[in-house]
Amino acid sequence: MTGRRVGDTLFFDEPVWVESCAAAVGKKEGEGPLGACFDYVAKENRFGEKTWEKAERRMIELACQHALSKADLTPSALDCALGGDLLNQCVSTSFAMRGLGMPYLGLYGACSTMAESLLLGAVLTAGGWSRKALCAASSHFCSAERQYRYPLEYGGQRPPCAQWTATACGAVILCDAPRRVRLRAATVGRIFDPGITDSANMGAAMAQSAYETLRTFFRDSGTAPEDYACIVTGDLAAIGHTMVNELFARDGVTLGGRYQDCGLLLYGKEQDVHAGGSGCGCSAAVLCGHLLPRLACGELKNLLFCGTGALMSPLTANQGETIPGICHLIVLEGAK
Amino acid sequence: MTGRRVGDTLFFDEPVWVESCAAAVGKKEGEGPLGACFDYVAKENRFGEKTWEKAERRMIELACQHALSKADLTPSALDCALGGDLLNQCVSTSFAMRGLGMPYLGLYGACSTMAESLLLGAVLTAGGWSRKALCAASSHFCSAERQYRYPLEYGGQRPPCAQWTATACGAVILCDAPRRVRLRAATVGRIFDPGITDSANMGAAMAQSAYETLRTFFRDSGTAPEDYACIVTGDLAAIGHTMVNELFARDGVTLGGRYQDCGLLLYGKEQDVHAGGSGCGCSAAVLCGHLLPRLACGELKNLLFCGTGALMSPLTANQGETIPGICHLIVLEGAK
Repeated sequence: MTGRRVGDTLFFDEPVWVESCAAAVGKKEGEGPLGACFDYVAKENRFGEKTWEKAERRMIELACQHALSKADLTPSALDCALGGDLLNQCVSTSFAMRGLGMPYLGLYGACSTMAESLLLGAVLTAGGWSRKALCAASSHFCSAERQYRYPLEYGGQRPPCAQWTATACGAVILCDAPRRVRLRAATVGRIFDPGITDSANMGAAMAQSAYETLRTFFRDSGTAPEDYACIVTGDLAAIGHTMVNELFARDGVTLGGRYQDCGLLLYGKEQDVHAGGSGCGCSAAVLCGHLLPRLACGELKNLLFCGTGALMSPLTANQGETIPGICHLIVLEGAK
Repeated sequence: MTGRRVGDTLFFDEPVWVESCAAAVGKKEGEGPLGACFDYVAKENRFGEKTWEKAERRMIELACQHALSKADLTPSALDCALGGDLLNQCVSTSFAMRGLGMPYLGLYGACSTMAESLLLGAVLTAGGWSRKALCAASSHFCSAERQYRYPLEYGGQRPPCAQWTATACGAVILCDAPRRVRLRAATVGRIFDPGITDSANMGAAMAQSAYETLRTFFRDSGTAPEDYACIVTGDLAAIGHTMVNELFARDGVTLGGRYQDCGLLLYGKEQDVHAGGSGCGCSAAVLCGHLLPRLACGELKNLLFCGTGALMSPLTANQGETIPGICHLIVLEGAK
């Protein structure tokens, strides 16, 4: 047994590397500050399909195909795929994977799915059960809006604390042979529920989980925020990002400028997304389009990627339940 | 790296053992032929709660608590939990795990979830990243009916090929120290779609996946059906079970009496469940209540547990999509 575990953190002493990665995004995401980073930007959010759901599938296929072609691989070279999305029964990912045809393990971690897929993909790779594993997560604004909230045609008002579900997919191929970016460790998140019932305020519901997972990781690893060039949460956006800073400030810890949030990086202020971006695809695309390339070129020394998720459904919200949050953390190291 | 992989099959040469297991079921399941096997049988399907969704959560908590108490453990002794259910956003499992408090990895494999959780739990254990992992899956007839089909009050007619979603949960604690039942290998399923659109005929939609995964496993392991005391699929019920037998017969392979299906074991003919049982909880509870105890006492030498799942949603059915199937296989060995 090669695995090493301290507390809730799994260390990958047998190296796990990033073979390639790619991101496919919608029109609005392509118009944002990271627009030039993405491998595919849709001209319109239907991706040439007849329904929003088919559009999301097409986007997943595009992200996976770009990741495969960057590594000069075909789907048959993959030992397995791990992934998920926000639609009921995770149908976007299942239907996309049906077309690609590799062994498939479906995940549900809400917006933390990209981190969860990397965590389990790394376990399979470091343990010797996979040589090439595809890890992916996606969300689509239009399919998510009509499922979680209102049909777009209804034109529902959004409060200022609301976030914008990203139309985006990120796909990473992990491998067991040396490459430029290494996956070093991962912390499995626990569920925390600060008692928030407002499903238009997800950032606040997930902030405690991000804080707890980061705190657990620093304790398990014996490291501190200043040991990392960048700490990024998945989709806490303006309110959740501020709350994480405040929670650490109470402990006398300053995260400072190294702490960023994918939901704040993906859109510009002029894009009217209110508190910021959200959705599985938000952290997945920012990781694959923006952060992993910076690690690969040596611009970032290392990174804590904290996938945040709100484990609620419209039904639990309607039944008056509070919103449980979760956060899985991945430690990535760049080229030396 | 200790992991050994042949084709799509992962071999666990570092042993993974079953520390304990438990099943909690509804009233109807308690009245079936396996009723006496289960650790908890509800007097009524609300489990003392106000909603069907809260009832499902309570059932999961009961199964997990029974598995923990049989092993004389508290939740804090668990390194992680892996599980899922059929409700949108897998809220039954998430909300139950919120109360238990261990690190949590959410899965979505439709009715194959019990096998998927055992597969990933075994990878974490054999790789040395977990000493005690909880694997669980559940379904509840009433919460599933109103989400997937009609409210119960509507009294919708069911065709003879329809299956009955089991009100059941199974929970297994895997460990890295010798016990009576060992998890020896697992095959990661691929998605197969035979083109069926009738969501009241799930067994037919999943049968090909079960056949393909079994065939892959026999090829990867160099074994044959007669090497196993029992081969059991998760919830193919009468139609799917017949189809798997027919598919193997075309290859000149006779599965014979060793091939059973959890959906046919769970209910008696007089219980009016039409083709048989289904749901994540069907295979999970039959495994934990009936099959694992028979392996532990030496009555069964070994077992191929094939978790079958239909990766559709009401939305994909309404959009005219066909039903993709998947099947993950687990190899279990009993006390010698």
